[in-house]
Amino acid sequence: MRRSTTAATALLLGAATLASAQTYQRLGTCPKLGCVFPPDQTEFLAGQLFDIRLEVHAPVNGSEATNGVPDEKFTFCIQGGNGPCEDATKFFKAKEPALEKWTFQYYEDLFARDAKTPTVVNVTSKAYRALSLAQPGSYTAKLSYNGGGQTVANWVVRKPATDRRAKNVLFFIGDGMTQAMITAARLIAHKSINGKYQSLMQMDQMDNLGHQMTHSIDSFITDSANSATALYTGKKSTVNALGVYVDSSKNSFDDPKVETIAELFRRRIGGALGIVSTAYIADATPAGLCSHTRDRGQYASIVTEYLYNATFLNSTFAWPTSCQGPDVIFGGGAEQFIAGTGSPNGTDFYKAFQAQGYNARQKKGKGEGWFMMSEAASIDKMMHVLDYDRALGDLLELDNTIRASIAHLKEIGEYENTLIVVTADHGHGFDVFGGADTKYLAAQSTDRKKRDAVGVYVNSGLSGYTVAPGSLPNNQTVVFGSEGPNFPVQWNPRYTYAAGFGANPDHRETYSISTKGPRVPATAGADGTYVVNPADNQAGFTVEGTLPTDEPQGVHSLTDVSVFANGPGAEAFKGVYNSIDIFFKIADALALGRTDGT
Amino acid sequence: MRRSTTAATALLLGAATLASAQTYQRLGTCPKLGCVFPPDQTEFLAGQLFDIRLEVHAPVNGSEATNGVPDEKFTFCIQGGNGPCEDATKFFKAKEPALEKWTFQYYEDLFARDAKTPTVVNVTSKAYRALSLAQPGSYTAKLSYNGGGQTVANWVVRKPATDRRAKNVLFFIGDGMTQAMITAARLIAHKSINGKYQSLMQMDQMDNLGHQMTHSIDSFITDSANSATALYTGKKSTVNALGVYVDSSKNSFDDPKVETIAELFRRRIGGALGIVSTAYIADATPAGLCSHTRDRGQYASIVTEYLYNATFLNSTFAWPTSCQGPDVIFGGGAEQFIAGTGSPNGTDFYKAFQAQGYNARQKKGKGEGWFMMSEAASIDKMMHVLDYDRALGDLLELDNTIRASIAHLKEIGEYENTLIVVTADHGHGFDVFGGADTKYLAAQSTDRKKRDAVGVYVNSGLSGYTVAPGSLPNNQTVVFGSEGPNFPVQWNPRYTYAAGFGANPDHRETYSISTKGPRVPATAGADGTYVVNPADNQAGFTVEGTLPTDEPQGVHSLTDVSVFANGPGAEAFKGVYNSIDIFFKIADALALGRTDGT
Repeated sequence: MRRSTTAATALLLGAATLASAQTYQRLGTCPKLGCVFPPDQTEFLAGQLFDIRLEVHAPVNGSEATNGVPDEKFTFCIQGGNGPCEDATKFFKAKEPALEKWTFQYYEDLFARDAKTPTVVNVTSKAYRALSLAQPGSYTAKLSYNGGGQTVANWVVRKPATDRRAKNVLFFIGDGMTQAMITAARLIAHKSINGKYQSLMQMDQMDNLGHQMTHSIDSFITDSANSATALYTGKKSTVNALGVYVDSSKNSFDDPKVETIAELFRRRIGGALGIVSTAYIADATPAGLCSHTRDRGQYASIVTEYLYNATFLNSTFAWPTSCQGPDVIFGGGAEQFIAGTGSPNGTDFYKAFQAQGYNARQKKGKGEGWFMMSEAASIDKMMHVLDYDRALGDLLELDNTIRASIAHLKEIGEYENTLIVVTADHGHGFDVFGGADTKYLAAQSTDRKKRDAVGVYVNSGLSGYTVAPGSLPNNQTVVFGSEGPNFPVQWNPRYTYAAGFGANPDHRETYSISTKGPRVPATAGADGTYVVNPADNQAGFTVEGTLPTDEPQGVHSLTDVSVFANGPGAEAFKGVYNSIDIFFKIADALALGRTDGT
Repeated sequence: MRRSTTAATALLLGAATLASAQTYQRLGTCPKLGCVFPPDQTEFLAGQLFDIRLEVHAPVNGSEATNGVPDEKFTFCIQGGNGPCEDATKFFKAKEPALEKWTFQYYEDLFARDAKTPTVVNVTSKAYRALSLAQPGSYTAKLSYNGGGQTVANWVVRKPATDRRAKNVLFFIGDGMTQAMITAARLIAHKSINGKYQSLMQMDQMDNLGHQMTHSIDSFITDSANSATALYTGKKSTVNALGVYVDSSKNSFDDPKVETIAELFRRRIGGALGIVSTAYIADATPAGLCSHTRDRGQYASIVTEYLYNATFLNSTFAWPTSCQGPDVIFGGGAEQFIAGTGSPNGTDFYKAFQAQGYNARQKKGKGEGWFMMSEAASIDKMMHVLDYDRALGDLLELDNTIRASIAHLKEIGEYENTLIVVTADHGHGFDVFGGADTKYLAAQSTDRKKRDAVGVYVNSGLSGYTVAPGSLPNNQTVVFGSEGPNFPVQWNPRYTYAAGFGANPDHRETYSISTKGPRVPATAGADGTYVVNPADNQAGFTVEGTLPTDEPQGVHSLTDVSVFANGPGAEAFKGVYNSIDIFFKIADALALGRTDGT
């Protein structure tokens, strides 16, 4: 924000106070009563497709109450650089969209929620579909309403790279993976002698290191859908949204869309596309590549969008780009494929894939290169249930996968052609703070005495996970590094690491691995709120949570996450930047921007 | 560790199990009964001074019990490369040191501690003082004892840079500063519009980003003394140690020393030296530059070592290098200067500085450049007491100091000559996990209901700290970035960030700033263990701690910390490396290594 002495700007700041920091917001990206999507500060790749949604709000009650009648005669113009502000229909050579109307409700704060006194907002709206801006530079989008009100969105079309540097892109996402977790994984899987690691994580050895900021467009903590949207489209959005900005209408499929890196790669280059996840394939991180919905829970629609464009199942709005059936899809989630309540229209969706030739398919786009996203999803899923061991295990499997992928790329002669990027989509407030003597902990009879089993500072000791529990057969020793497993030799040493979150549900702690399967730390008590799961960690001490009592799991955190990159275009990933910049850096390595209007 | 099929190696691994992961260790760097300092894996700058300490242990009782008589006839030889193993007196042209003997005790585990059954260890020892290795390459140090036992230490002298690239070094340490804290500081002090920051931290904008691993030599969690030793000497050590390895003797000043970057800079170049801290000047992070003691609490000795070498006050052993009176010392801690129990020998130590010409002193080493360390100490001190606001405030002051320093260096024409490095010495397991409605929290009457004030994900909202609480005078707006304060506009908005640690003492939480001064979260209860401080955060909800009940504060954590660097030699700070590498990178930028035996 630049210095300004106008009263109008000061008022804008004042108005922003009301909505910006609230637990509940009327519409996060829209502090004023007129809303423009894409909102102020949006940046585009030249030629990237996007929808525009305009809304005018008329709150019926609450702190912003009006007469309740939203303006139906709002106008919208676009100004390129210092040119005139042209009506959007003229500027984009688009038809005037139909006026839409709806009403929504929200709570202004937690007191209003407890009192069940929602604020009602009447809305008028229009939407322009599948537009693009080809010329790099600055644009100003102006929505005028209520006889003098104006909402201005400043947009920038970035100057695209013209030389394609990477033939292939291999994009690894460790879901929820922070630097604290990478450090802990290194501790339990790599041998250190007197403070010197004898082998390192593959991530540690990559050529370029960066940090990216994961926050949402309208809240400082993100979820995986929203952050996938940022990474894949270059647009921050709202929690739960995939490939769209979130408007205030009820329909989960009419929100303004933006084109993803996968759609651009298909449309511009026609290269091969691969999507791999250890989660179900309709989960947010894989889904973000091809889906357009404000609701990440629309699993049936999401798998439909792998094959068809967004208009196929739910949307009545043109969206002339899609993933066109990825060449590789690996993931869980048979629920969306076996005919039933979870599958698209209840059909056998394996058959839909077979009909597209997925049985014996020729590789598409051979010679044009490929884009592959591979997700380690259990880092996040196991951190959510405080099952640190399984989370770190998945992180180590990701690291070993990266190592094996590099070896394979070298073997097939594609390593020099391939941009490899490894990052996360958000954090969890995890860190190791000491060691724990699990034998001592189990032998104590009170919670306070059990806590005494934790050793801090010098008493944290060293990693017991890299030391074989007894002598190994054939006098073998444990090997780490490029030859080795790069995995703990044992998961349940007497002296374990002690770790935790700043934000927990009620739970019990033993600092030992959950041998019966992933943890369920909290379960619903008599009043429906979450309390310690009576079956979990029965020998442990109780940790009363800090989270709202309707939250059964840990939650995401704010911290910047690391980015590691190798290969052509990888040096652009050094330094500190926003999550959306990852999209632009990959798009530039592939030269996906076009200034010719295509 | 390389693959090996010898039984001896397998046994070594087995033996390491016993000592390596324990809460209490006999001597962390010494899993066998013979100990060599510097231990296995040590790396040296060519010509860096160091002591050697040898010990042979004879446990009287416990799991490693012997006849209790330690070998007095142990031998010690050094092998350079593939040459012969020469007796150390010959190799170093040193006199045979006198044999020393002592006894120490330790607990093998927490059960032994509770039962008050220590293990007694008798020791024989020798120490060689102030040696150095000039030739780059590998060395093997072999201690032979007990008629066949052997402890081997592999040492490496790194090939030093011969061209000096940096005239000056400006080394900023944010004590305990993690990336999660930098992210939180950015949130509260820089304005974001729709997810795009309008200004950034100075750290964010530096040219080179790295990560360093902070663990100790003998435990995975470090303190600030030990980590200062790693950063300043290139040697990992033990918690509480400054510029020495920790031996098992009682004397806090006879432990084997290593030369620091400040001593080397004085001895090799004679440039100007500056030491600045927001802590007392005898605190670990400033002290590490000039001090040599296993006990960071020896404040009087520590301030003495700023002026004189380590033999002046306490040590009877030659140490022919020192900081020689830094040109600039800024810090707190009058207790060590006003004549009294805290000052060296009870004297007025201001006078000792005056006698050295500190009143109207000529600048030393003019033209030879300067080395300056500047520490933001309250990040750590305030994180320890869970006073996140003050910790982040100090972090922001550090960032603003870096910005001002860069501007000043440009102004005086020294920016291009100056290597600037910004890093931390360890972490705290802090992260922001949501927002909190402090008004709602205060209005609730039960702890569980108060927790409900926390908003996670989309309900975390946006930063209220960058929004002025009302309209500003003269229609001014708030400016961030290079012109602005880069500090919160208000510290106590209704909607705050909610943050925490995985490791806490018992405390109460309101997520509001502590307006009466720094927090004291826990105080001793009737039985001497720590419970909630009755005076702290009385309107908050209780969080029962996870730490041992003798711990009144938060503790350090494992996470790698960030490194930001600009200037000549700064590109070496990219990527992921060990804390000790910082010493070598700075030494190489200054070309402090010498292969000519000086």
